[in-house]
Amino acid sequence: MGWKEVASEKRESVKALIPREWRLESIPSIEQQKDVTGAFIHQYLSKEEITITESDAIGIVDHTTTGKWSALEVITAFCHRAALAHQLVNCLHEIFFEAAIEDAKRLDEYFKKEGKPIGPLHGLPVSLKDQFHVKGVGTHMGYVGWIGSDKFEGKTDTKKAGTYESEMVKELRGLGAVLYCKTSVPHTLMCGETINNIIEYTYNPKNRYLTSGGSSGGEGALIGLRGSPIGFGTDIGGSIRIPAAFNGLYGLRPSAGRLPYYGMANSMDGQNSVLSVVGPLATSADALRLVTTALLSTQPWLHDPLVLEIPWRQSVEDETKHAFQTPGGMAFGVMRDDGQAIPHPPVARAINMVVDALSKLGHKAIDWKPTPTHPALCNISYKSWDFDGGADCRAAFELSGEPPAPEALLANAPQANATDIMKTNIEKREALKEYMEYWNSSEALTGTGRPVDAVIAPLAPFPAARKGAYTYYGYSVWVNTLDYTSVVIPVTKSDKSIDKVVPDFVPKTEDDKKTMDTYDPEIFDGSHVCVQLVGRRLQEEKMIALAKLVTDALK
Amino acid sequence: MGWKEVASEKRESVKALIPREWRLESIPSIEQQKDVTGAFIHQYLSKEEITITESDAIGIVDHTTTGKWSALEVITAFCHRAALAHQLVNCLHEIFFEAAIEDAKRLDEYFKKEGKPIGPLHGLPVSLKDQFHVKGVGTHMGYVGWIGSDKFEGKTDTKKAGTYESEMVKELRGLGAVLYCKTSVPHTLMCGETINNIIEYTYNPKNRYLTSGGSSGGEGALIGLRGSPIGFGTDIGGSIRIPAAFNGLYGLRPSAGRLPYYGMANSMDGQNSVLSVVGPLATSADALRLVTTALLSTQPWLHDPLVLEIPWRQSVEDETKHAFQTPGGMAFGVMRDDGQAIPHPPVARAINMVVDALSKLGHKAIDWKPTPTHPALCNISYKSWDFDGGADCRAAFELSGEPPAPEALLANAPQANATDIMKTNIEKREALKEYMEYWNSSEALTGTGRPVDAVIAPLAPFPAARKGAYTYYGYSVWVNTLDYTSVVIPVTKSDKSIDKVVPDFVPKTEDDKKTMDTYDPEIFDGSHVCVQLVGRRLQEEKMIALAKLVTDALK
Repeated sequence: MGWKEVASEKRESVKALIPREWRLESIPSIEQQKDVTGAFIHQYLSKEEITITESDAIGIVDHTTTGKWSALEVITAFCHRAALAHQLVNCLHEIFFEAAIEDAKRLDEYFKKEGKPIGPLHGLPVSLKDQFHVKGVGTHMGYVGWIGSDKFEGKTDTKKAGTYESEMVKELRGLGAVLYCKTSVPHTLMCGETINNIIEYTYNPKNRYLTSGGSSGGEGALIGLRGSPIGFGTDIGGSIRIPAAFNGLYGLRPSAGRLPYYGMANSMDGQNSVLSVVGPLATSADALRLVTTALLSTQPWLHDPLVLEIPWRQSVEDETKHAFQTPGGMAFGVMRDDGQAIPHPPVARAINMVVDALSKLGHKAIDWKPTPTHPALCNISYKSWDFDGGADCRAAFELSGEPPAPEALLANAPQANATDIMKTNIEKREALKEYMEYWNSSEALTGTGRPVDAVIAPLAPFPAARKGAYTYYGYSVWVNTLDYTSVVIPVTKSDKSIDKVVPDFVPKTEDDKKTMDTYDPEIFDGSHVCVQLVGRRLQEEKMIALAKLVTDALK
Repeated sequence: MGWKEVASEKRESVKALIPREWRLESIPSIEQQKDVTGAFIHQYLSKEEITITESDAIGIVDHTTTGKWSALEVITAFCHRAALAHQLVNCLHEIFFEAAIEDAKRLDEYFKKEGKPIGPLHGLPVSLKDQFHVKGVGTHMGYVGWIGSDKFEGKTDTKKAGTYESEMVKELRGLGAVLYCKTSVPHTLMCGETINNIIEYTYNPKNRYLTSGGSSGGEGALIGLRGSPIGFGTDIGGSIRIPAAFNGLYGLRPSAGRLPYYGMANSMDGQNSVLSVVGPLATSADALRLVTTALLSTQPWLHDPLVLEIPWRQSVEDETKHAFQTPGGMAFGVMRDDGQAIPHPPVARAINMVVDALSKLGHKAIDWKPTPTHPALCNISYKSWDFDGGADCRAAFELSGEPPAPEALLANAPQANATDIMKTNIEKREALKEYMEYWNSSEALTGTGRPVDAVIAPLAPFPAARKGAYTYYGYSVWVNTLDYTSVVIPVTKSDKSIDKVVPDFVPKTEDDKKTMDTYDPEIFDGSHVCVQLVGRRLQEEKMIALAKLVTDALK
């Protein structure tokens, strides 16, 4: 069988796992129905299903850990909505609804017998990017060559196929989460859109002219359509934050070593100059807090050698709240434009909305002009991703003979040697030091006795990229070079009546031109617009707290 | 000028900085005087100088922070004793007594004016391995090609020569420490002995037939002779712990990211698979605690991008003390023999002494048979050190044309490429995971409700290596692969009347044979014997506390 047949068979086999009564007879064209969220998807759901699936993770566990909702009714509602989502925007790689229903029944029995939940996530549906290994289902990462029940990351000799579970999967189960699907990714993972030869393209449910983002694009689309309340993605250049931002969600990119990555499939595994990290995407800031505190309560540093022994620091969260609630108690750096590609009007407006909301509370906004510049920081990540010259990804493609999608960032360069890599590591360290001292130096301007508490910045130069037109990655990648904690928050929606084309726009760079060329108020109208709040390294407590505080300030 | 002349001129210029009245007319031969510590060196010192220099760091700051001793009298005593030490065992690379005396005078003025110390290390002399940059003095790391006041790490274009200070140097000064000398290292730093073409060989002051260890061998010799109360070294394969152990000292190898390494010279800088770490060597466990808490109080994570925001955790120290003081409250793994090279009789006896002392307190000793084995862990570090095939070190030798010492571990292999390095990084992660789970599994045997609290192990198979015969590194290197926290504590002295040659010894390996061949009860008689206590990653509070508790138990 050629790769096309293998891919097509897999694609159909996933769809075949959708129960007949949940199948849609036809899907409207994009022109007919740009936005498939809200009222559109509601037509296929019961009132109860809508109530359940439009609760955030906190709302769900409030019910499931107190016996008000059974785990079974909750997971059933989400399975239904996820099945609809997949038919509408192509967001799932693996469906295991039956196993999920069995797990939910066991949780309900436990609750009935013990009179208490099994853990803080009792009955919470959690979706997973297709890098997590879950027993009984495959992991494909978008590669046709990884398809097959005898295969584990493309290999047949590992004895792990079908049985192995990633560390976080075990922890989520122990906490009471119910796992039911794995979501689509772009092959190579190095892409801000989600496309591969198996599932093809994942669309943005709010605006199907646009991408759902990548590489955790299936997560973004699924949660965006409320087919999941919370899910986990990974981020080496924006891959949690991009789909969070493009789908109007909250997304946390923790610093490396905070949450357990152990036992997941990855691209260019072993490249340790700029690490991929794992983190949640969800429909509320409280949901990010819920799963982060729950995971840390399992002491993941005892089971993942790269996780740091840093329990949840309640004092940091408390101090953050206190400072925020004090007029003028905080100060923020504001990065409107990185000098390489000016953001589209809706994104520029979102930044201003955040600054205005914070200013009304008396907090200070400080122009952020760091050295190294963000584009200079990005170059260090780009170099690191190219170290193996594309060898790892090419080997994955060669397993089946399939071609890479043009959207994927596939290196095609000679292998770096040890001396090259050491030089880049030194360059990175020096850049981090310089940026750190720039951040420290802001103390002179804040009036708080501290440097800025966070930097407000675009996550991308567009509300979401148009299909095939992810013209510029610089607004997300600088954070990965620094390994800082970043949280994405939804701010507004594109509005063609406000977000007009920039008059007499004169591009400063080729990236600038290509990016602004993709802006069309009509096409973008209604799309989600998010920003990111960036904190220093390992500031998860502070950034999650700020995600909620800033959201409240925007109301 | 050829390299020999440059080296010789530098060697003499260091000696010339010793005031005439502190110069020794003649040095006895090793045969005449094996041990130059204690009574031997006392002959050159006043009673007051002996009192000061034989106080530990705590004893010193108790006096200097309360005005009982002036910083000037303390540093003067240590300068004198350091000058003697250098003449006896060749342990200094840089002498800057005059600058130290000026600094001490400023501290005394501060105290007089403000009526309080400038910081917790007010007036404490601190010696530094010759990887630290200190303004006004060179950094040579044993390379002739780095000599010259216009040079900074062998380069002339950095604008840092003579002015730059490493991050920790700034922090130490801010805390009130007085810096006065930099200590010898083996060129390449990859050596358990200390030898280079500038200073030549650094001898073990307790037993000049033996090495002072390496690569922080100058620190070990200097502090062993009480020419310094505390100093800082670095450790990528044992380089803090080896000289600590060989000189009867306390030495802390923290996990990477706990103490600030930023701005230090290094070998193979940018190799980030197995990182070199910085840590203290001292004459008491309390001294390790003093400088570690002091450095963490400066929030080094705000100035070194690799330092983790983990302040001193007093609760961990308190819990450690409580568990230790509870009969049977702790359990220890005991690694007597790694299967590759059996330790010499004095080392084996020291391990038993520790186990006996702990058993008397009701604590459990558990046979430690981990997988991966320690030699397997070591291989991962050895591979990482070879990544650049020796290019970095060879370039440093080529600056002057000097030859490497045969003792230095200089790689001579092809450069690894990115794929090779990635494979090693994955191998390391999997090894760490397996070892971590072995450690976790010991919970079933301890009776404490926890896995073992630490592992008791030799730091080397000998009390100290004989000159030119560092036959086996496996007892220190496994810790570096794991990045665990290790503390060295002195236990006993070699005693020819007890530590007889092993009868009918049958070596299991070539390392075993070569190692045991070097044992001679007569030669080793009187040498220090230490062991290491190894904790999990980032357990500095616990391991420093245990260093003291176990020492007290041995009394």
